Amino acid sequence: MESPPTIAGLRRAYAEGAAAPRSVLATLAVRAERHQDHAAWIHRLDHAALDGHLARLAQVDPAAPLRGIPFAIKDNVDLAGTPTTAACPAYAYVPNHTATVVERLLAAGAIPLGKTNMDQFATGLVGTRSPYGATRNAVNANYIAGGSSSGSAVAVRLGLAAFALGTDTAGSGRVPAAFNGIVGFKPTRGWWSTRGVVPACRTLDCVSVFTRTVADARTVAEVAGGFDAADPFSRRIAFESFDIAGARFGFAPPETLPFGNEAYRHLYAAFVARLPSRPRSVDLAPFYAAARLLYQGPWLAERFAAVGGFLAANPTAVHPITRAVIADGEAISAVDCFRGAYRLAELKREAEAVFETVDVLVLPTAPTIYTLAEVEREPFETNARLGTFTNFANLLDLCAIAIPAGETADGLPFGVTLLAAAGRDYALLDAAARLVIPSPRGPDW
Amino acid sequence: MESPPTIAGLRRAYAEGAAAPRSVLATLAVRAERHQDHAAWIHRLDHAALDGHLARLAQVDPAAPLRGIPFAIKDNVDLAGTPTTAACPAYAYVPNHTATVVERLLAAGAIPLGKTNMDQFATGLVGTRSPYGATRNAVNANYIAGGSSSGSAVAVRLGLAAFALGTDTAGSGRVPAAFNGIVGFKPTRGWWSTRGVVPACRTLDCVSVFTRTVADARTVAEVAGGFDAADPFSRRIAFESFDIAGARFGFAPPETLPFGNEAYRHLYAAFVARLPSRPRSVDLAPFYAAARLLYQGPWLAERFAAVGGFLAANPTAVHPITRAVIADGEAISAVDCFRGAYRLAELKREAEAVFETVDVLVLPTAPTIYTLAEVEREPFETNARLGTFTNFANLLDLCAIAIPAGETADGLPFGVTLLAAAGRDYALLDAAARLVIPSPRGPDW
Repeated sequence: MESPPTIAGLRRAYAEGAAAPRSVLATLAVRAERHQDHAAWIHRLDHAALDGHLARLAQVDPAAPLRGIPFAIKDNVDLAGTPTTAACPAYAYVPNHTATVVERLLAAGAIPLGKTNMDQFATGLVGTRSPYGATRNAVNANYIAGGSSSGSAVAVRLGLAAFALGTDTAGSGRVPAAFNGIVGFKPTRGWWSTRGVVPACRTLDCVSVFTRTVADARTVAEVAGGFDAADPFSRRIAFESFDIAGARFGFAPPETLPFGNEAYRHLYAAFVARLPSRPRSVDLAPFYAAARLLYQGPWLAERFAAVGGFLAANPTAVHPITRAVIADGEAISAVDCFRGAYRLAELKREAEAVFETVDVLVLPTAPTIYTLAEVEREPFETNARLGTFTNFANLLDLCAIAIPAGETADGLPFGVTLLAAAGRDYALLDAAARLVIPSPRGPDW
Repeated sequence: MESPPTIAGLRRAYAEGAAAPRSVLATLAVRAERHQDHAAWIHRLDHAALDGHLARLAQVDPAAPLRGIPFAIKDNVDLAGTPTTAACPAYAYVPNHTATVVERLLAAGAIPLGKTNMDQFATGLVGTRSPYGATRNAVNANYIAGGSSSGSAVAVRLGLAAFALGTDTAGSGRVPAAFNGIVGFKPTRGWWSTRGVVPACRTLDCVSVFTRTVADARTVAEVAGGFDAADPFSRRIAFESFDIAGARFGFAPPETLPFGNEAYRHLYAAFVARLPSRPRSVDLAPFYAAARLLYQGPWLAERFAAVGGFLAANPTAVHPITRAVIADGEAISAVDCFRGAYRLAELKREAEAVFETVDVLVLPTAPTIYTLAEVEREPFETNARLGTFTNFANLLDLCAIAIPAGETADGLPFGVTLLAAAGRDYALLDAAARLVIPSPRGPDW
């Protein structure tokens, strides 16, 4: 296997007898060893565990959509018998049950390779807030990988897995896709079960997926999604479509956007100029306002609700930056919480009005990218800036897909995110497939 | 007009030329004077205002469903140009805009008679927490009318209006219906706009209606409901039905219920025994647990969010009991607020499971009724008990209709509430129409 694995490519190779799951796993293991410096993994399954999964394939329908497809799992999503750490060793536990989404993938024949590195407790967009090492960008190791699903994105871009699960509350499934030049799909909230996922903000959390192609993301979505009565936040999605060929696009004029990087501004302008129809200019005020609610408003208390007790009992066990961010959630009042909910309800109406006039809102995924050194120097402000175009999506009940959209003169990936109203996931995937500007193949598979 | 007005009766009389709106208003004005002791009204429209509404009828389609039908409005719902007090004189304001629901009724030809008394800020189920006087029960003036929509229910039972708007957050549109032997319909949250309504708990509040018959409630619902983009909590309801003739009923064994009144227990048992099919016994644990969240949990902070600022600025202007209840909302944390939301999400799943096996849950509307003197002696505990079977409905996203179900040997009305899943409003109304046990006609029309 010379080229990086994709779901479609492996399926073809398996069907033609050109490859077998066992040999693919062996290749990926060698490759994982070679790329240890990227700190993509927290835990890799050992030989015996992988053998168990290979043996299990005998019971899987040969036509199952993910039969023999190797994938990685962010380490805040449970795989029974394998530790879940959420990138906090003291928090680690070995789950007895596998997360519903992973169960569905396993049932479709997918083979889990291990658990990936992440910003601790999924709080961060940088990928550096981990005692397992700062994840390094797959394309240029001086740069951050983006977070919080840093290891999953890097694993896919480095060809260590055909796809990888992330989670996405504030952009954790999109920013790392952009920084590593791959696809990151964040489904409508509640479509993919969050049972068996360490919560960040339980009312907002999504499981997401990283792939090399939009078609692969669709394949995973068809397997992973579905109502789960055991997840109180699971929803029965009434899927809607729109005219893909005639999709109405929205954008924001590049000169009005708070880019931190002129190369990104030009790449965004170039992407918008290539859209198949003239896009409509959208006022981002309600989107920015919703974004601010997430870390400057009541939803910070959700993170405290999830791990505040652990923080209090184990103050030195938590990454100091993560602790500083989450601790602020304790003092917020319920009155402010409801006021935030009212404000959000109003902003939702404004966003709904936008999505009556556009089918797909096209925004940069992130306004800039930082080196590892830059984030180390200023860990809070850099992180906050990265969420400019992502923080609002779950609050406003949108689905989103981050896709590659070229690269800078320095060879750094740039990405855009396409956003659509809840339940338009499949249509969004179809629209995205027509717009992606594939990243050049990585140098070293 | 000898008999108390109903929508259907007045429409017939108007069609036959047996009555005209002007003469009906005159009769109702005389009747309102006679029943002043009940403290049903806070503000009645004067002659000139009523004349204006009568003149407006010339522009209303003769076939409009509420043409010339007189109605009352709870005094937390805006009617432009008429003060809204929420039963707190210092809070009063004269709105420039009419609440959306009222606008719809006016457009259909309904004639507003005035604003009705209520528990201050809609906080209470007793109808006594008002500086405009404790509302007296329409059937026996020694008893409470129930609240918070006390005046609206009494106005309908005394024949002072053909129908009356209430609001319902914790049971305010149902308990007074039961205590006055009439129908109280609380639609699915978000179907009827709350724009122009003084909030109690904004995420839960419903506008409701009191009528003498279920058919009248349906007539009002057809006019009052509908999406309102100006109300952030308005929803586009996907209505669902169920087999009315073969409806599956749920109940709780009368001996297991915390009645405070054996007559009520027997009347409930008798009602259940008359159901057209054998009902299924339902475990009320998730319903009770949700009910406790409303006043013993984070939603109390919503009431503080609505009027806490006013309370702080005008401490002596607020009813002391109301102030005591709402003030507790200030100290609740956002963390507890989210924990309450998680608990509620779990309870919703349990309630959903119940409504997969039953179409209609039949419960007593209230466990007992109190005299005015009893509530004066113990104003908190009595009030809390009255919400036993109502507090959970909005939290669990149910629609509900309170209907008369006989009376005690003392001639006090008893009522049951029929509950169904969100969006099954019309089916619930159809089911209720077959089950109502009409209250005897009042003595003095």
